[in-house]
Amino acid sequence: MSDELKKGLEGVLVAESSLSFIDGDAGKLVYRGYDIEDLAREATFEEVVYLLWNGELPTREELSAFNESMAAERPVDDAVLDTVAALAEADEEPMAALRTLVSYLSAEDPEADADATDLDASTRKGRRITAKIPTVLAAFDRFRRGEDPVAPRDDLGHAANFLYMLTGEEPDAVAEETFDMALTLHADHGLNASTFTAMVIGSTMADVYSAVTGGVGALSGPLHGGANQDVMELLLEIDEAGEDPVEYVKRAREEREDWRVPGMGHRVYSVKDPRAVILEAKSEELGAASGDAKWYDMADAIESFFADQGLVEKGIAPNVDFYSGTVYYQLGIPVDMFTPIFAMSRVGGWLGHTLEYQAENRLIRPRARYTGEKDLDFPSIDER
Amino acid sequence: MSDELKKGLEGVLVAESSLSFIDGDAGKLVYRGYDIEDLAREATFEEVVYLLWNGELPTREELSAFNESMAAERPVDDAVLDTVAALAEADEEPMAALRTLVSYLSAEDPEADADATDLDASTRKGRRITAKIPTVLAAFDRFRRGEDPVAPRDDLGHAANFLYMLTGEEPDAVAEETFDMALTLHADHGLNASTFTAMVIGSTMADVYSAVTGGVGALSGPLHGGANQDVMELLLEIDEAGEDPVEYVKRAREEREDWRVPGMGHRVYSVKDPRAVILEAKSEELGAASGDAKWYDMADAIESFFADQGLVEKGIAPNVDFYSGTVYYQLGIPVDMFTPIFAMSRVGGWLGHTLEYQAENRLIRPRARYTGEKDLDFPSIDER
Repeated sequence: MSDELKKGLEGVLVAESSLSFIDGDAGKLVYRGYDIEDLAREATFEEVVYLLWNGELPTREELSAFNESMAAERPVDDAVLDTVAALAEADEEPMAALRTLVSYLSAEDPEADADATDLDASTRKGRRITAKIPTVLAAFDRFRRGEDPVAPRDDLGHAANFLYMLTGEEPDAVAEETFDMALTLHADHGLNASTFTAMVIGSTMADVYSAVTGGVGALSGPLHGGANQDVMELLLEIDEAGEDPVEYVKRAREEREDWRVPGMGHRVYSVKDPRAVILEAKSEELGAASGDAKWYDMADAIESFFADQGLVEKGIAPNVDFYSGTVYYQLGIPVDMFTPIFAMSRVGGWLGHTLEYQAENRLIRPRARYTGEKDLDFPSIDER
Repeated sequence: MSDELKKGLEGVLVAESSLSFIDGDAGKLVYRGYDIEDLAREATFEEVVYLLWNGELPTREELSAFNESMAAERPVDDAVLDTVAALAEADEEPMAALRTLVSYLSAEDPEADADATDLDASTRKGRRITAKIPTVLAAFDRFRRGEDPVAPRDDLGHAANFLYMLTGEEPDAVAEETFDMALTLHADHGLNASTFTAMVIGSTMADVYSAVTGGVGALSGPLHGGANQDVMELLLEIDEAGEDPVEYVKRAREEREDWRVPGMGHRVYSVKDPRAVILEAKSEELGAASGDAKWYDMADAIESFFADQGLVEKGIAPNVDFYSGTVYYQLGIPVDMFTPIFAMSRVGGWLGHTLEYQAENRLIRPRARYTGEKDLDFPSIDER
């Protein structure tokens, strides 16, 4: 036992994994050996999830079977929809609603009783969770807008079906491709806090509903999942004030010492996040297609300012959240759904890492350095 | 960065804490400086929760105000009871139901919007969660038995009120005292997996509903929270078969190499768990009071057998779960509610550690050693 305090567990190796590899200095992210850029451009989200869970890219037949099984699992019971409606009625936060709903889904799982040591059953449960998250999220957003939920379609891909359920309209090819790409980019990223949460829970051999519910909870924290929403809110605020984005940022940095531009810098990257590179291009493309490049231009101007200040070369460079916000916004997704959408994708990684860890499990139980008293006499209540 | 793999994080210090101290060699457990035996015998569960959260034992006035505020928070909204009923109707596992219900409770929290950096608001939210868990658990058990829930009473203590809501009858003094003591014994225990889960979630500055929901999920795992249920199920099986418990254990150990007596041995104790010492005495007392010492006698016989084999001195000694099962069973609590009752108590520790960590927060994000490929060329689907 070492007496060194590993606060935040920074740099501490807690597991072996073959899911994803990050080279923070080279700005490289790999899932199962494949570069994130290739996967984003060439593979669908379902294909990537298959890869993460199975270790290999699917053949055409395997992919087709996987797509069908995912599509078949999209519908949810009326009892679940009633709970979605109740949470919308109570004006619950979207991430809190998702946490409750993922947990609730276990009540309708046909294999709820399967032991967590049955990794095949856990994978099937995970597929059900992954398939149903878009359904409950879209229904939640529609209920709170006073609209009826739109039933899932089994002839659309995961990304297109979500946009369809959210808006009631089939997305165009650019929107579908962009959203699918965004899902792939967020599907895994080493042992981030939510993935590690899922693993710690899984290490008790709790089932995957517990692991994913915990992951959603961790991702709801502002230090983890909320930054793309923060970026968009900043851009909206700048736009509403009619200000120049760079002037705004300069002034905010001068006036408030602890103020930070959200979506800039990342613990594991010293250069620009490779996911930001891809999303930046998509954001620009969406702006050009719609004829309104405002959001992309604002984000780009802020990045250029950071580059001019020499901050980008110091690692204060755009991370995945910096451009994903403008992408989602241009796709018509409500700002407070950005983090739930992150969960809709990262569930692939949560499940992959949890199942990988459970296959060679060891209960995760660290220690604390005790700093309190040890031998106090118990005083009666009148002696206090 | 060290390249050593810290699987299970065994022995790794991840935080400083003044909540609880375990001396595994001496069989000593301390909360905030006070010996667990003193607290179990002299303090109520509410008093112990106050101590864990505030660092000091309450004065008479402070305790009275705390008791009142806890009692006032016991009732839940009808929407929550509807969800309890739906989960009971769906025959959900009790721990999965509790996970969903704790998560759901955030929708009715009057301070749901408070930022997690407001630790006072988080403490109040935590008090609401702690006060309401017994209400939803008792309602769940009654709904699945086809009975209406019993509304909480504000003139009973936390332990007595739970037994009252569960059975519809006010418990006698021995039952109340015993159950209160059991709650105190389970309230905290260093950085076990569920407490660490709550901390990892809290380290993203997610709110306490997320942290506690994650804790429930982790505790639901058979490697963590289920052992007291396993002990009781073993004793019931032995009893039903009309066997001698020692002969049963001997035979099972011979026949199945991987078979273990549940509730024996603990990663952090090399001697008998101090909580087991206290619960053993209560189990014996309950048996004597009822005139039926069967369950205590069986457990005691198995412990004696382990002692005779020299196993107890090797650390394969009773842990807290070994006697708590017989205690709960003698109090008339259904066997599958034992782990939920553990959660009902441990929530005190989950909240204490989460808030202590958030006060000097650092995002928890470890690393994995990547064992996969890094530079694979992406094959088209027909090349696979």
